Amino acid sequence: MLQTYAERLLANTLKDLVRRGTLDVTLPDGRRMNFGDGTAPRAAIRFTDTRAVLALLMDPDLRLGELFMDERLVVDEGSIYDVLELLLRDADAVRPGAAVRMLDTMRMAIRRFLQNNRPGRARANVAHHYDLDDRLYALFLDDQRQYSCAYFEHPGQDLESAQRAKQRHIAAKLLLEPGHRVLDIGCGWGGLTRYLVEVAGAGHATGITLSEEQLKGARELAARAGHPQAYDYRLEDYRATPGRFDRIVSVGMFEHVGVGYHDAFFRKCHDLLTDDGVMLLHFIGNSDVPDFNNPWIEKYIFPGGHIPSLSEFTPAIERSGLVVTDIEVLRLHYASTLRIWRDRFLARRAEAVALYDERFARMWEYYLSMSETAFRYQDIAIFQVQLARRQESVPLTRDYVGEREAGLREAEARLGLMSSGT
Amino acid sequence: MLQTYAERLLANTLKDLVRRGTLDVTLPDGRRMNFGDGTAPRAAIRFTDTRAVLALLMDPDLRLGELFMDERLVVDEGSIYDVLELLLRDADAVRPGAAVRMLDTMRMAIRRFLQNNRPGRARANVAHHYDLDDRLYALFLDDQRQYSCAYFEHPGQDLESAQRAKQRHIAAKLLLEPGHRVLDIGCGWGGLTRYLVEVAGAGHATGITLSEEQLKGARELAARAGHPQAYDYRLEDYRATPGRFDRIVSVGMFEHVGVGYHDAFFRKCHDLLTDDGVMLLHFIGNSDVPDFNNPWIEKYIFPGGHIPSLSEFTPAIERSGLVVTDIEVLRLHYASTLRIWRDRFLARRAEAVALYDERFARMWEYYLSMSETAFRYQDIAIFQVQLARRQESVPLTRDYVGEREAGLREAEARLGLMSSGT
Repeated sequence: MLQTYAERLLANTLKDLVRRGTLDVTLPDGRRMNFGDGTAPRAAIRFTDTRAVLALLMDPDLRLGELFMDERLVVDEGSIYDVLELLLRDADAVRPGAAVRMLDTMRMAIRRFLQNNRPGRARANVAHHYDLDDRLYALFLDDQRQYSCAYFEHPGQDLESAQRAKQRHIAAKLLLEPGHRVLDIGCGWGGLTRYLVEVAGAGHATGITLSEEQLKGARELAARAGHPQAYDYRLEDYRATPGRFDRIVSVGMFEHVGVGYHDAFFRKCHDLLTDDGVMLLHFIGNSDVPDFNNPWIEKYIFPGGHIPSLSEFTPAIERSGLVVTDIEVLRLHYASTLRIWRDRFLARRAEAVALYDERFARMWEYYLSMSETAFRYQDIAIFQVQLARRQESVPLTRDYVGEREAGLREAEARLGLMSSGT
Repeated sequence: MLQTYAERLLANTLKDLVRRGTLDVTLPDGRRMNFGDGTAPRAAIRFTDTRAVLALLMDPDLRLGELFMDERLVVDEGSIYDVLELLLRDADAVRPGAAVRMLDTMRMAIRRFLQNNRPGRARANVAHHYDLDDRLYALFLDDQRQYSCAYFEHPGQDLESAQRAKQRHIAAKLLLEPGHRVLDIGCGWGGLTRYLVEVAGAGHATGITLSEEQLKGARELAARAGHPQAYDYRLEDYRATPGRFDRIVSVGMFEHVGVGYHDAFFRKCHDLLTDDGVMLLHFIGNSDVPDFNNPWIEKYIFPGGHIPSLSEFTPAIERSGLVVTDIEVLRLHYASTLRIWRDRFLARRAEAVALYDERFARMWEYYLSMSETAFRYQDIAIFQVQLARRQESVPLTRDYVGEREAGLREAEARLGLMSSGT
């Protein structure tokens, strides 16, 4: 009885979602159902037990990934990416039922408590993901270990070159002058700080991170750079950073701040910036109404994180005393980045299994796949927000961005930096 | 007793505000007070009666302009612009008292009622300002009658050339293709629609306005343009416009919509736009926390208007189904525009007096002066917000803006358009 009801609910939901392309579903007893219009892409999934079907229906955002990790939902044809694409590509056209919407409202109300990112918790959240084995990241990231969205100047650009273009684009918007002191909040393995010092002429770069693995890597790489004395990397929470800086940059860190700490973050940045300082904030943003994080991502990948909408982070900026001088919305660049990361990861999947295990490798494939579909089909994008204390600290037109990029390209050539980013 | 108290309050307030520069104040009985550090700029004002001093203290935002209009506050040295600059340049450093802040909170709460811009009221509000004698606007606007912020590509650029650059910049961001159907909401005298058709190759332009004077002007100018059949100008509220358009543009109109109608505005624009449509919204925005309009501007210049902060208009966009694809913050361009308008107006002030009267000419000088100081010292700026229904309707990098501007510049040269904009 329950089984029959569950099958009918599954069939109705998949019929609504899969409008283009083809999805074949095999039930635990071997019976098969077909969805879609028979065209490509095509994928086939199989449930190993009836409780897996029920679990998926109860909480699809969390359970789809878990069932895939546990091999209770097996992909027999195509990939888990194809399955996600089939489910999400036209999902915007499907209106959620009243029960789903009520549950969403309740979850929105409590998310400030879920994102209680006081310093100790923030540290634990970061360690959860970024302190994974360095060899794992080496499997799919570029040679500068840039674990953030690349900037594709033209379709088909290779990852190393697009990551170099990202550094160049950010450096141009930072309006760096020789000798400037720069702070990088969430510096990762230090790739951007090295570019700002070696290519763009910054006098000193302070990089802070909460990941011990990244700190170690950043220090090692800076020791081999042209100006090793120009770097200071520290295991430090942004709230504890002293001093003032001519320029502040933060790439892929603001997503971990949490809604309840937006005010603290921007006020602290305001205080860290010199009077004529400029700041560039690069993070994953939501172009739709505010939403809570995907529960699977929250549980397995980024605990405590939040992808903010424009309406969520702009009030805190206005209250901070900083002024927004520009907002670029980089759409689809992260989808392209994730596609390359996933291809590289799957090509070296056996090494990931050797480092961890099969279940971890499936988790990682699911993470890269679902993130790509979010950027492609769910109005998730990169926001590059430029900020200043004084509106006159930034030129009156945006022409300087292209002009400075041309200058930086020349500097890269003089230093013998290849577009491959070595 | 009251007089003594008022004089002391005036002295304390001016001492706080005027930190750099020099302001001399002559009281009604001839006694004089000095403020500032003795450097330039220098201005001298005189109160004609004691009640003028009291009125200014009770409600400075409203009364300063009124007292100047009524010659109860007379500027004996310098200009009313100099006085405003001396009062506002460092005002951010002065913290308002508790009573002022409480009053502000109350006024914020009731502003939705003040901005009750239902269609009939919106029409009356527009007529109040834009239906003034066409000859008045001819005194200070460029030859294309562009009553909005110019785009200064370099310092010292002349107004005609900077207004042409504004049209070019907007046309580039609109990503116009030959034959496109364009809607201009708040089309003014039609200068932008003529550029989009004659230079940028739009197939048809619909311009709507609530000003009968502007409608008449736009129709006359289009009749003399290269493709008179390509224009349709109508006296129409945006809420009543039928059809769908490939491109929507709106320059200097959104300030008149009012906070309570942001949702209606963006939902209507969403419905008016084709699936792969692009929209460019250009308006005066506030880079600070939300504020109510200046009461003098509300009473004498723009009833029902509101200058929105990022945190005020972004929620309505997110709810509308449109996505933000870019936000440019044009700082100080309007200050430069207003400076030129004021210089031109004052050079032909006698003609304005002949059209209206002395008090009107003083009102207009105050309006241009205080608007300039708002852009220069109070974090007011132009926001150019680009919107689309689908994120892939806009190129992945902003390089296209400069490329398209270069192409439009060539088209202007082919058509023999001078940088003077004739």
